[in-house]
Amino acid sequence: PPGRKVLIVYAHQEPKSLNGSLKRVAVEELSKQGCSVTVSDLYAMQFEPRATRNDIVDCLHNSEEFNYGVETWEAYKRGGLSSDLVEEQKKVQEADLLIFQFPLYWSSMPAIMKGWMDRVLVQGFAHEFPNCYDSGLLKNKLALFSFTTGGSKEMYANGGISGDIRYVLWPMQHGIMHFCGVKVLAPHICFAPEYVSEEKRKEMLIAWAQRLKTLWKEEPINCSPEWYFK
Amino acid sequence: PPGRKVLIVYAHQEPKSLNGSLKRVAVEELSKQGCSVTVSDLYAMQFEPRATRNDIVDCLHNSEEFNYGVETWEAYKRGGLSSDLVEEQKKVQEADLLIFQFPLYWSSMPAIMKGWMDRVLVQGFAHEFPNCYDSGLLKNKLALFSFTTGGSKEMYANGGISGDIRYVLWPMQHGIMHFCGVKVLAPHICFAPEYVSEEKRKEMLIAWAQRLKTLWKEEPINCSPEWYFK
Repeated sequence: PPGRKVLIVYAHQEPKSLNGSLKRVAVEELSKQGCSVTVSDLYAMQFEPRATRNDIVDCLHNSEEFNYGVETWEAYKRGGLSSDLVEEQKKVQEADLLIFQFPLYWSSMPAIMKGWMDRVLVQGFAHEFPNCYDSGLLKNKLALFSFTTGGSKEMYANGGISGDIRYVLWPMQHGIMHFCGVKVLAPHICFAPEYVSEEKRKEMLIAWAQRLKTLWKEEPINCSPEWYFK
Repeated sequence: PPGRKVLIVYAHQEPKSLNGSLKRVAVEELSKQGCSVTVSDLYAMQFEPRATRNDIVDCLHNSEEFNYGVETWEAYKRGGLSSDLVEEQKKVQEADLLIFQFPLYWSSMPAIMKGWMDRVLVQGFAHEFPNCYDSGLLKNKLALFSFTTGGSKEMYANGGISGDIRYVLWPMQHGIMHFCGVKVLAPHICFAPEYVSEEKRKEMLIAWAQRLKTLWKEEPINCSPEWYFK
């Protein structure tokens, strides 16, 4: 609906890929609805995935023994985080919905996107004990993981050789988003696009556009072990 | 035992950290046993986590549409992968045992280590359909995930707020190592070292050294859903 803000965190090297098309479809459809859409195109930004001392621009809280979690927490409080992180945090703060668009790499997100999680969601900004899970600092936001797989739907079925696809969603949806208080919408999964026809891939794009039309009416999933491991 | 080769893939910024000590203990204990130990110290190496076109040194197989999986597979076959990857693949090839030592970041490994998985374990080298899972190309090797957590043992208990710690091991142990044919030893987990006494942290180091003394007699876990989600 008009006025809603969406951040798409996107990790694919190739604009012509299905991931690139899925990202474009989301920008188009959500813009058409009157949403304001921002894209963090991580490869194009050459986003830094490594969590290092460089993320703190000024002096360290404890220069004797570097502790990344403590240092970024302290730096956040005094405004001493590197500008690329501050930039991403602003985008997150303003967003009502975060969409993560990526190809599944090794049962998880590509390292460049994991680095976005590791570096952007610092303590003090996204969570601060005891403000985690339902009381995480990013509550009132929604997240949606939209990804492609190498393996087929059969491989990722319950009882399939790769295990239920929901198993790999636990660390991402519960371990990261739910921890920060973000409510999670059902994932959007395109299975094995490299092994289907051009026709089928087009259907995948249409299905995504269709889902986006009624996305704001969706209820979040119940992000507890039952959803993942029933 | 004498002659066994071990690769420790290590991801912590601070040598004085518990992770740094756990790594040193492993190097010392395994060397004492006569093993030959190699360490990939990812932060010290400034290891590149991003999967990009730079990983292929020569021409692309298809320069019209970049596909990382296909390009690295093709480059592997013709010897066209970047030297940092070739270097890591040699270490993996020679190793009988891979130890991954890291702090758990967001229910998974730090991005710099995820990048090691994404970039080093290329098709043709680590797997090549149908050679995956029990027939993966790295069979006859062992892997062990050794990590520290922020959350306590109670939070990671079955029924705890963060869910059974085994849930987060599925993507790493089954999704990556088992997929490549590597047999997985039980993980080694130090819970919440930042919240315990110096005395307790010393006990953690001693316990790790003790375990390593009889490590070669251990049986791998049964890396199937039952182990993780029973």
